[in-house]
Amino acid sequence: MKGFYKKLAVSWKNQNSLLCIGLDPDLERLPETIRKGKAPLFEFNREIIDATALWACAFKPQIAYYAAIGAEAQLEKTIEYIHTHYPLLPVVLDAKRGDIGSTARKYAQEAFQRYQADAVTVNPYMGGDTLQPFFEHEDKGVFILCRTSNPGSGDFQEMKSGQHFLYEQVAQRAMKWNVRNNIGLVAGATFPEVIGRIRKIVGDMPLLIPGIGKQGGDIREVLRNGLNADKTGLVINVSRAILYSGGGRDFAAVAGDRAREICLGIREHAGRLESV
Amino acid sequence: MKGFYKKLAVSWKNQNSLLCIGLDPDLERLPETIRKGKAPLFEFNREIIDATALWACAFKPQIAYYAAIGAEAQLEKTIEYIHTHYPLLPVVLDAKRGDIGSTARKYAQEAFQRYQADAVTVNPYMGGDTLQPFFEHEDKGVFILCRTSNPGSGDFQEMKSGQHFLYEQVAQRAMKWNVRNNIGLVAGATFPEVIGRIRKIVGDMPLLIPGIGKQGGDIREVLRNGLNADKTGLVINVSRAILYSGGGRDFAAVAGDRAREICLGIREHAGRLESV
Repeated sequence: MKGFYKKLAVSWKNQNSLLCIGLDPDLERLPETIRKGKAPLFEFNREIIDATALWACAFKPQIAYYAAIGAEAQLEKTIEYIHTHYPLLPVVLDAKRGDIGSTARKYAQEAFQRYQADAVTVNPYMGGDTLQPFFEHEDKGVFILCRTSNPGSGDFQEMKSGQHFLYEQVAQRAMKWNVRNNIGLVAGATFPEVIGRIRKIVGDMPLLIPGIGKQGGDIREVLRNGLNADKTGLVINVSRAILYSGGGRDFAAVAGDRAREICLGIREHAGRLESV
Repeated sequence: MKGFYKKLAVSWKNQNSLLCIGLDPDLERLPETIRKGKAPLFEFNREIIDATALWACAFKPQIAYYAAIGAEAQLEKTIEYIHTHYPLLPVVLDAKRGDIGSTARKYAQEAFQRYQADAVTVNPYMGGDTLQPFFEHEDKGVFILCRTSNPGSGDFQEMKSGQHFLYEQVAQRAMKWNVRNNIGLVAGATFPEVIGRIRKIVGDMPLLIPGIGKQGGDIREVLRNGLNADKTGLVINVSRAILYSGGGRDFAAVAGDRAREICLGIREHAGRLESV
């Protein structure tokens, strides 16, 4: 193993965690003392990162929260902070990019050179040639949207052609595209039986799982359907349910407690307690 | 008519043009004198805009070219420049966004509030609920990817379920979603017969057509398949074939000539010469 797959595998093992902390700082929801600072998103993230790193296998900043208010510099600082202080923890930039080849190369540059992310999320709708510029960064990871966690995700993803749903065809293609061993898939926790179907198609491929927490996914069902034989393979993301579990000045401590609780819950249900 | 539909209709008529100028300034391809300046993307765009505005119905900046190098401020200045100097010409921000509702609201904020775009491109893969936050901006336009211009666009878009391709199902849904009359579709010039199939489904809905120019789409076939009864309905984008038609210090004049030529070619083949 090498590159992103290796970094992720080391993190799963060292941290004994499958929990990914989503860094989606919504300016309007930050504690007032933080909101009034000069770099509120970064300051909020910094405290969250320090409070939760012990329980995390990865961090996943969602770029929209920064781009909406012109705070790209705070996203850069956030990722730099993680690389400096927690260099073993991978950073997945959640951007869901997808465009024709010449443009996709620019998006790959955005994610991997500008922001120095270890992995990025991408959208498969436009087809394989639009994803190749991401795959070509062989030390980086690329999580392709497969079955998403939102209520309307079935609108097109559950379109059936012959025996296979669209999301299954995406998973099948991902297997073919994965010649560099740097591809993963996004599969929402809100459809755990679908995670099982995807797992059957893609073997040990890493799955990024949104939808636990505010979106209501069931952690036991996710683990039952998605774990690999070695009890890894999943990057289970929680954002809002950790970030805003407090709300006052002690938000970070409360978030740390919540992350600990979720991480231990995952360990327990995954039968990983013995390796603590 | 109101909002984006109205702005576009007025522009088609006033400008007697269906040509959209794509503002995809690749730093590496800019003339040296421009590249060495403080705001090279903006300075390049400013000259291109002034040289081509007479022949354009819209401008379409592709955000990846700015985001790759941390030049969001130059994108803001570019759009502000268009609104100030050519207030009747709509700006379509090409971003191909798509994410769960809470995140989609942030992306809509990015496109419509931060950048003040008149319209944005979005990706339908995640389903209708992820696009609603864009549609809710009723004075703004939303172009949904339907059939894209790239070679691999058929990988999933041509998946057939029953009688219908995926891209046709996207077009059918778009018609249902269009309760505010602010939706358009993206249909690549490289598949003109597909433009005809989409036109049959969506009536007079505006179609954004990439793929003319470097990608090799045939303008006559696009017009034959895509024009509405009033000889409008299309926003035909050309980026690189105009931007880099020169290459020296006179790049803007050369680009202006090229835009004029393409615009007049479209007028001729569309049978719009009489209204010049």
